[in-house]
Amino acid sequence: MAKSKFEYVRLYELDDKLLKNVWMVVRVDGKGFHKFTTDHKFEKPNDLAALNLMNDAAKGVMSELQDVFMAYGQSDEYSFIFKRSSTLYGRRSSKIISTVCSMFTSHYLFNWNKHFKDPLIYPPSFDARVVLYPCLRDVKNYFSWRQADCHINNLYNTCFWALVQKGKLSTLDAEKRLNGTVSSDKNEILFSEFGINYNNISEIYRKGSTIVWTEKKCENGRIKKVLQLLTCDIIDNSFWNTYSASLDLKV
Amino acid sequence: MAKSKFEYVRLYELDDKLLKNVWMVVRVDGKGFHKFTTDHKFEKPNDLAALNLMNDAAKGVMSELQDVFMAYGQSDEYSFIFKRSSTLYGRRSSKIISTVCSMFTSHYLFNWNKHFKDPLIYPPSFDARVVLYPCLRDVKNYFSWRQADCHINNLYNTCFWALVQKGKLSTLDAEKRLNGTVSSDKNEILFSEFGINYNNISEIYRKGSTIVWTEKKCENGRIKKVLQLLTCDIIDNSFWNTYSASLDLKV
Amino acid sequence: MAKSKFEYVRLYELDDKLLKNVWMVVRVDGKGFHKFTTDHKFEKPNDLAALNLMNDAAKGVMSELQDVFMAYGQSDEYSFIFKRSSTLYGRRSSKIISTVCSMFTSHYLFNWNKHFKDPLIYPPSFDARVVLYPCLRDVKNYFSWRQADCHINNLYNTCFWALVQKGKLSTLDAEKRLNGTVSSDKNEILFSEFGINYNNISEIYRKGSTIVWTEKKCENGRIKKVLQLLTCDIIDNSFWNTYSASLDLKV
Amino acid sequence: MAKSKFEYVRLYELDDKLLKNVWMVVRVDGKGFHKFTTDHKFEKPNDLAALNLMNDAAKGVMSELQDVFMAYGQSDEYSFIFKRSSTLYGRRSSKIISTVCSMFTSHYLFNWNKHFKDPLIYPPSFDARVVLYPCLRDVKNYFSWRQADCHINNLYNTCFWALVQKGKLSTLDAEKRLNGTVSSDKNEILFSEFGINYNNISEIYRKGSTIVWTEKKCENGRIKKVLQLLTCDIIDNSFWNTYSASLDLKV
Repeated sequence: MAKSKFEYVRLYELDDKLLKNVWMVVRVDGKGFHKFTTDHKFEKPNDLAALNLMNDAAKGVMSELQDVFMAYGQSDEYSFIFKRSSTLYGRRSSKIISTVCSMFTSHYLFNWNKHFKDPLIYPPSFDARVVLYPCLRDVKNYFSWRQADCHINNLYNTCFWALVQKGKLSTLDAEKRLNGTVSSDKNEILFSEFGINYNNISEIYRKGSTIVWTEKKCENGRIKKVLQLLTCDIIDNSFWNTYSASLDLKV
Repeated sequence: MAKSKFEYVRLYELDDKLLKNVWMVVRVDGKGFHKFTTDHKFEKPNDLAALNLMNDAAKGVMSELQDVFMAYGQSDEYSFIFKRSSTLYGRRSSKIISTVCSMFTSHYLFNWNKHFKDPLIYPPSFDARVVLYPCLRDVKNYFSWRQADCHINNLYNTCFWALVQKGKLSTLDAEKRLNGTVSSDKNEILFSEFGINYNNISEIYRKGSTIVWTEKKCENGRIKKVLQLLTCDIIDNSFWNTYSASLDLKV
Repeated sequence: MAKSKFEYVRLYELDDKLLKNVWMVVRVDGKGFHKFTTDHKFEKPNDLAALNLMNDAAKGVMSELQDVFMAYGQSDEYSFIFKRSSTLYGRRSSKIISTVCSMFTSHYLFNWNKHFKDPLIYPPSFDARVVLYPCLRDVKNYFSWRQADCHINNLYNTCFWALVQKGKLSTLDAEKRLNGTVSSDKNEILFSEFGINYNNISEIYRKGSTIVWTEKKCENGRIKKVLQLLTCDIIDNSFWNTYSASLDLKV
Repeated sequence: MAKSKFEYVRLYELDDKLLKNVWMVVRVDGKGFHKFTTDHKFEKPNDLAALNLMNDAAKGVMSELQDVFMAYGQSDEYSFIFKRSSTLYGRRSSKIISTVCSMFTSHYLFNWNKHFKDPLIYPPSFDARVVLYPCLRDVKNYFSWRQADCHINNLYNTCFWALVQKGKLSTLDAEKRLNGTVSSDKNEILFSEFGINYNNISEIYRKGSTIVWTEKKCENGRIKKVLQLLTCDIIDNSFWNTYSASLDLKV
């Protein structure tokens, strides 16, 4: 195709290739989801439909980008990790970040009606970043960090909303009440005041959602790779040992 | 909120701040849109509903990111230019790229039903990149490049689909017929064989879509900033002169 | 030449090209020069031989890299500015930084004996960084920043060493005496206590050294480009106007 | 110290921190050394004094930057590898590159007279780059690449200069003669025509120079870390095993 004399402006593009042979983690985060979840009347402290929608969006990304071998999500965020040998888009940072973020957004909207009766009032958006990890230990600790964060936030939120919804405190008073408390205090409030044993709360709320590739035997005997949703502990090594075949763990 | 011992993995994040005081252009591109437009039966060579949807998505981005002072779109791509003084997200490249791309994607899906009767078969996605321009001349030439590209592709496609749809050529034969032809040859084919005067074709197809902020007087007398869609020539300086108040043209 | 199977490790190299069409400023700084100047018995507050050596080193860099159109030095630092259109080493950041720094270092050592009787006790080193400037105003302000810094430091040092050398204060007492003083206080101390009119102090100490390319008529009538050392004010526009032909000032 | 109103220009500086926890290799290369070695009458194909000077310069760098645990040099280049945990200069790329390059240059000039009778005619310079390696295997292969390169070049040069110096061929004819030859051909030429057994040539020419830290028992019984020069094979694992205590090999 003919080229114009203006073509030279392409020369301003700079290369943004990421280092070879390290794990790339792309984390997608909801933008302004405090307002979005309120406007769309998400249940507090956790809305199962909303989490299922996030999981569908993440599965959508993984189906389209098979170099992603694992994803972990909680609240309004999702992390995707690529095989360290991945050469997707020549490892160009902007391509990888924007594609993951766009796919996630697109699957989120596409699947909205599957999980919510009421239509979207306005379009939600996400941002994304990429972080490189050269060591398996730090890869595991990255996911441990996000799962620990899920736990810390969920314990707080569970307690906060019990105080508000059942304890009839104002949100301000609930906040004051929790100010300075540690984990055991919050467990105690939940148990003694509201009869809630935190450990009996649904695992998906306490542990977040992990998605890995796994093999399934089809009726015709063939093996097929399918996505499997887990809500287990991923801080403990047992997860990494159990799923080692599906995970890119070689150093 | 409490922090876990895993928090240290954040230290792997690298700064990706873009140079101050230069124009940032983010270009969003459809991924696999050849297949997407075929599967969704877009009219060839141009589908007005599809272009209107792209324009809605671009207006959505501009409404949310007021530092974008102009956008230009054609085919399955859209370019957004930020004021050179913009400090959005501390000018972090990944934040800017991912947010623009996610917002565009989200508004595209959100508005789909407004333009198309049939629902989406699967979710489309986009990628994005950012390019920096330090000179006004090159900013103008960037948009000239995209508009020249629009013209070159549209003339080719208009001719190609006339040969296929009206000339009953196979796509392969149409391709062969156009191989090696220059603009005047294509204009001649359109005119002599199909009675089409290329210059009479709708401007939105030949020139693409340009969106700028403009002022509108409300009934109460107040001035309001609104988005205005244009389909004019933006290679010529007259566009830049006419809209200079809305454009960030200071050097 | 034959290639080994190990050649693939080159693929880890990342591109570090700098944005086109902006001014590149490389600033070279002495490493540990507090100790170096003491060990080599530089005169305080200013050692003319040391400054002449710095200027020789800077001229050496400019002779080898003709895209540098101006340099400014003071104390143990020197800044070099490249034409905005420079394509030296494909604008690769590491090449530009390391080459300027190495050339400066090399000319510094090469010319040492020209300025100092005693040999070097150990080899001094420098570091370097590059900063990009898209606007002429900021280019001028960059050099104004360094010249203002020269003035501030030199006034302080002149006063400090007068108190120590002539006032017989300990360095600690001199420091205390100057703590909290403003410019006028220091001028007053110099004048009333030591009879020094600061404005009569040699310009090279107060203004630093500026080097530009200028034209010289040879005996045979030909015009030759030569390096010219100036010690004038470069904050004022008159410098930029006078030397505009030698400076890359086009926007 | 007072700050000027021009200080804001610092905000144009961009962060260039290198990824944590990967090996950083800085390679320094002579600039225009073909001409430099000719002008300074270096012996061909190898000048022992010149190699000893390079080794002194490399030792100088390692003495000043103790995070460098190994260096390898051949011809006019030297590679320095930093401990993967190094936090030198906050891992800022420009600081690391420029400092290594400046120190190398400075020690090269400082030690010139120790190795050469005639003074430098003009100051030589070097450039430098940094490459990141996340895997031990690739670190080893990086050094294998440079040593294989040393071998390939040295065999060629040994043969070329034998043909010129002893065979009395013009440089052009020597080049033609070697065009298309493989290693065994060159070994054969050396042996049959000039009686040279390539494997008997001094190891420093065939293998290059490797410097590591090693421990030495002082007279007073204390252990001191000293730099050790080796000319052994570093492609073979035996080097890595022997010196594993001095090398940063943990994954």
